[in-house]
This record gives sequence, C-alpha cells and structure tokens, in this order.
Amino acid sequence: MNLIIKSPANPRIKELVKLRDSPRRRKERGVFFVEGGDDLLALIRAGKRVDEIYGCLPLIKSSGRESLIDELKKLGHSIIETSSDAQKKASYRTVGNDFIGVVKAWDLSIRTNLLQGDGPVIILDELEKPGNLGAILRSVEAFGGAGVVLSDPALDFFNANVVRSSRGLLGSVPAAVGTKQEVLNWLKLSKREIFATSSNADLDLVKVQLTQPIAFIFGSEKIGLGEFWKNAVTKWIRIPMKGSASSLNLNVSVGCVLYECIRSF
Amino acid sequence: MNLIIKSPANPRIKELVKLRDSPRRRKERGVFFVEGGDDLLALIRAGKRVDEIYGCLPLIKSSGRESLIDELKKLGHSIIETSSDAQKKASYRTVGNDFIGVVKAWDLSIRTNLLQGDGPVIILDELEKPGNLGAILRSVEAFGGAGVVLSDPALDFFNANVVRSSRGLLGSVPAAVGTKQEVLNWLKLSKREIFATSSNADLDLVKVQLTQPIAFIFGSEKIGLGEFWKNAVTKWIRIPMKGSASSLNLNVSVGCVLYECIRSF
Repeated sequence: MNLIIKSPANPRIKELVKLRDSPRRRKERGVFFVEGGDDLLALIRAGKRVDEIYGCLPLIKSSGRESLIDELKKLGHSIIETSSDAQKKASYRTVGNDFIGVVKAWDLSIRTNLLQGDGPVIILDELEKPGNLGAILRSVEAFGGAGVVLSDPALDFFNANVVRSSRGLLGSVPAAVGTKQEVLNWLKLSKREIFATSSNADLDLVKVQLTQPIAFIFGSEKIGLGEFWKNAVTKWIRIPMKGSASSLNLNVSVGCVLYECIRSF
Repeated sequence: MNLIIKSPANPRIKELVKLRDSPRRRKERGVFFVEGGDDLLALIRAGKRVDEIYGCLPLIKSSGRESLIDELKKLGHSIIETSSDAQKKASYRTVGNDFIGVVKAWDLSIRTNLLQGDGPVIILDELEKPGNLGAILRSVEAFGGAGVVLSDPALDFFNANVVRSSRGLLGSVPAAVGTKQEVLNWLKLSKREIFATSSNADLDLVKVQLTQPIAFIFGSEKIGLGEFWKNAVTKWIRIPMKGSASSLNLNVSVGCVLYECIRSF
C-alpha cells in the first residue's frame, strides 16, 4: 500500500461519502462507490474499470481477507491505505468495509442489440428497493436470465446497496434502464412475449411453455403493475400457491419464475 | 375515534417508540409494535390479541384506507386518534404509518407437537436480517410450508421489520425459536429428514423426492451453515444454476425449495 489517509476529514474521504450517498454526484462523475473487497473483485473480473481502491489494514485483518491485497496488486491495482477512522467515515456498513473502491459506471441506455441471451429477460417497473434489485441480479446471474431492464425506476442502478446486495454481480448481468415507452419499443423489436404474474391468472407457471423468447414484467413493490404494462402483457401466469394471502416477496416471485425457466430448458 | 393524542411527547407515544426499538421492552411487556393498518388486520384475522390501536386521520386519508376504521371498529377495536406529529414520532416509516398497534406476543418455545403440517419445515440458523425472515414467512404461507423454526437467531422474531416485511403474516405461520440443540432434539422426534442446499451437492433439487416429512435448514446470510448443522444434514441438494457465481439471496433459495415442494405434491 502506498499512501496513508489518516483523517476522516481528508478531502478524498469526503468525496467517497458524496459518491456513497448522492446519485447526482455519481452521475456527474460517471463513477460509483463500492464497499467490500469481494464485491470489488467481482467487478474487476467482470471487466469493469476500477479507478481507486482504499484499504484499511485493521479492517482487512478482521474480515480475514488479507489475501485480497496481493490479488488486487497482481491485477495491477494500487491500494491507498486508510486509518480505521477514515475508512469507517467513508463506509456505510460496520462489517465488510475492508476495501472501498471507486468504479467507472457504464452505459445503461436501451439499445437495439441489448440482452441477446437465450434466457428470459426480467423487466422491473418503478422498482424502489436497492436490496431487491441486488437480489434479482443475483438470481438472473444464477439462473441464466438474459438480463434485467428497469422501466422508470425509483432508484439509482449504481446505489451502494445495489452493489452490496448483488454481491458485485451488477457488472456481470446485462442491464438497461429506460422509460416505459423506451422499454416497450425495445421489447417489440426484440420479439419477446411479455408475461406477467398474477394470483388471479388461470394459467399455471408449471404448465406454460417457457422455452421461447420471453420477458417477464414485474410491478413495483408497493402497487404492482400499472395500466401501461397491463395493456402490454401477452400472457398472465399464476405461480402455484396454497396459502390464502397469495403474497410473495418480489425477489421470491422473480426467483421462482427464473427457476421454472431453468427447469424447462 | 375516541381520544386525541396531540403531542409527540405524550407518554403513550414514548412507550410506542420503546416498543418499536427495544427487543428488551417488548419482552418485558410481552407485546410488540405493528405499523400499518393492513398488517394489523392480518394479525387480528390470524386470531392474535390487539391491545391498542392508534390511528391518524390525515395519514389514513393519504394511505386511502379510511374503510379500515369501520372494519376495525366492527371487529370490536377502539382506535385512539393521534395527531400527525404524534403518529410520525411513533412510526419508523414515512408511508403506511396510518395505524399503529400494540399486539400481544405469543409463545415461540419449542414443543413436541409443533408444526404438524404436511409441508416442509424451514429451519433458519443464526438468521440476522428481519427483512429476510419476513419474506420467508410470506413464502412459507404462500407455498404451504408447515412452519419456520429459528435456531439461535441473531434477531427478535417480533422486530417491527419482521412484521412489516411479512405483511403481518407472522401470525399466520407456525413458528418456534430455540437453541441449536433444542431444535435438533425436536427434529429428531419429528422424524423429519434434514435437507440442506449447497452449490457443490450432486443431487439436483429437481430430481429428489420431496413428498416425505422434510426440514430444510439454511445457514446465516453471512457465513452459511456451521459445523453443528452440517453434521445433522441427511441429504445435500443443489438448486440447479447456470451462472458462475452460484449466489442466491437467502429468500430466493428458500422460495425455490418451497416452490419445488409444492410442484411435487
């Protein structure tokens, strides 16, 4: 490690706090904030450009990830050493804050040749919770989905909590962000069927054919799918349930749909 | 509504804040804090005893749940009216804080005749995140699991976030809490097989028989299953995945296992 930042008042630490908390600052600079050495490594392995890495020796020791120092150096990265006070000022968690990185954001605009994979695309309308996006990115990666498209999201894709809850996999899953109309236009060009889930649908997820090009669309955590997307849906599907509440967490609904798709291939 | 609390400094509001934030206070009084009229209603319908209900008219209007006032009254509950300032002081969210209730906690100790249902039992070891427990309770309810057992949890079952993220369904799903040894002893008496998931297992979830009495055990979000439970597992199962990271959010793993079980019945 080649430089020591001791004070939590150091301008670089203040800038990290800004990147951590302010979507506007991230947009202005075209970079985002990553906390945790393993998440940084996942992003590096996905080919993303890491501009700065801050490491705090006592915190690296307590997380047991000393080997990451050499691993990051071998990959050509230099590490700026920080004091515990400085690193803790910049971090938002009390564990797993061993390394902090500044990573270059990438283009998320809707392009015609986006998400060409065989698996299903997950469309998330007006998504609110960073933790949900992170969990869904993990599921899409695990179950071989073609990618994720956010339509009019109420969150920033590069939010620190998306990074964390995705375990750094936000760099490994094809993703795009657009308005409802942009997403719908793209979907029409992509020739994917548009499926959505409803507890009132007749067609059981277990019985529907899932091997053709499909996009599954899910509404926001609070209010579900609005009229715009309801009108675009080509098939309504029911996830089989026994309970009376018919209430699944968004991540779980997405996970079950992706799991059924992987089962069908 | 029959009483008006105007000041956020009112002793009843202060007590609500204590119940909201302090597991010790909840334990001392044997009650817990519920925010949101629909969650309260779910608990009443599950037969739980509601001791106090606080309602704030402007917030009820903004949540569009005016009909709940009559519904709660018809069920024999009186509602203490609060000012916006007082209600907001007691609540921990900025939306859905129309009603706040104090509900009697129930016994969660491990008893021999617990969780007699046909479906699988979900055992969660050293669980940390209230949001995960809530989402899992919803999945168990939806997919007809027999219940949830927490072994040495690092959270309080009656945490306000468990209530919220379960949509009040924590009262509808059989649940128990014990030490690892208590849970293991109960499991042996219950004659359930003990299954666990691992990305290294050979046996595919799609191919394993799931109609016998089973308990699925999942480790903590951070470190997975420890030695104690690893030694108790009778069968290791792999959730089929395509991705290289093999990383699923805990809720999603539990959801897929329960979904496969409902598929098998």
